[in-house]
Amino acid sequence: MKRKACAEAGIKSFDVDLPEQVLESELIGKVHELNALPDVHGILVQLPLPKHINEEKVLSEISLEKDVDGFHPLNIGKLAMKGREPLFLPCTPKGCLELLSRSGISVRGKKAVVVGRSNIVGLPVSLLLLKADATVTVVHSHTQDPESIIRDADIVIAAAGQAMMIKGSWIKPGAAVIDVGTNAVNDPSRKSGYRLVGDVDFQEACKVAGWVTPVPGGVGPMTVAMLLKNTLDGAKRVIEQ
Amino acid sequence: MKRKACAEAGIKSFDVDLPEQVLESELIGKVHELNALPDVHGILVQLPLPKHINEEKVLSEISLEKDVDGFHPLNIGKLAMKGREPLFLPCTPKGCLELLSRSGISVRGKKAVVVGRSNIVGLPVSLLLLKADATVTVVHSHTQDPESIIRDADIVIAAAGQAMMIKGSWIKPGAAVIDVGTNAVNDPSRKSGYRLVGDVDFQEACKVAGWVTPVPGGVGPMTVAMLLKNTLDGAKRVIEQ
Repeated sequence: MKRKACAEAGIKSFDVDLPEQVLESELIGKVHELNALPDVHGILVQLPLPKHINEEKVLSEISLEKDVDGFHPLNIGKLAMKGREPLFLPCTPKGCLELLSRSGISVRGKKAVVVGRSNIVGLPVSLLLLKADATVTVVHSHTQDPESIIRDADIVIAAAGQAMMIKGSWIKPGAAVIDVGTNAVNDPSRKSGYRLVGDVDFQEACKVAGWVTPVPGGVGPMTVAMLLKNTLDGAKRVIEQ
Repeated sequence: MKRKACAEAGIKSFDVDLPEQVLESELIGKVHELNALPDVHGILVQLPLPKHINEEKVLSEISLEKDVDGFHPLNIGKLAMKGREPLFLPCTPKGCLELLSRSGISVRGKKAVVVGRSNIVGLPVSLLLLKADATVTVVHSHTQDPESIIRDADIVIAAAGQAMMIKGSWIKPGAAVIDVGTNAVNDPSRKSGYRLVGDVDFQEACKVAGWVTPVPGGVGPMTVAMLLKNTLDGAKRVIEQ
């Protein structure tokens, strides 16, 4: 999907396929090569990595100026801190805020609940919402009575990776619901034997929410769009310097 | 207070006093000198800095291994991220968690509300509480009806810098209340003409809360203790390497 989107937008993309047994040092060497190439403006390391490779170490080797995923801890630190700006915002969180903004939903002063606290979505989207002046609560596997907390939210970001855990009755009437979950559930009626569903019961949510994103077709394409935007911004920054 | 505590604990401390008109480059030069001294294990830059100096730039020049305040964005990023550990936790947030732990208050699954979102206290303490599996809500100046949110909390961290804003009626009976605020209010009965109060109405809170820290004498000394602990840990890390 990312390759196709790049091609459509006029961004050249290429894969570097490495065998699963690749040494960590070889993978890092490859990252360094790409860091040094002036025509490369964005580098993605496809996760998860094989178990013998230290993911943290590899990701931290990507040049900050090419970290279009925005996962570098220095980027996350600047994202978290008042008065600091990261070079790149992580794509899915950035896409969530873009969806709200394009739907005319103001964030300031709203109660926002983020379900899940992953480094890739839950955590950074909660930091972004806080920076945008929402009153943010993070709900996770240790939260007691998540239902009552979610039902109080004007904005729900569902990123728990639990198929259809959020029922219609959990949603405040009129709330904006962004469903980041992508879960495969068995479906014998499909040729593949499965279908993709979100963390939200979409059919039920449609009857209650003011806005709700579908899965697939909601957050996913927006994430890809933000990745292209980050890459373009990174290229512009280099050219303007 | 920090100097005295260092002397008592057997940590040598010294000040580098620079004139207010000091050039940013001179200040950074001084930081680099201290970075290079093997006998220096912790560096504090006293904030706020004069307006002509870029605080962010100066702080980011402190060697990560000597950043005992824990304010470096890379430290904050690692504090925020699951599976990552910063070299140093910021002192006041670390002290808040220590106070809870030493009082036998478990954090996991509890509703925690952090009032304030400063880079020094509110933000990092909310990230620490989240890592400790609390369900965390951050309340700030744009929050609507903060009272009802605070009243729902098992743990309240007050770090808004608003004298006695949190009344007894805002507190859930039995809650643990940590008051980080230090506000000077007029008091003609004192020789100095003022006294220090927290963000919590202490007299009222005492009647409702299960635990409440006083101001002064609560979080302040714990912050200093954590600073000494960070410095000791930093020294140990160097010696063990």
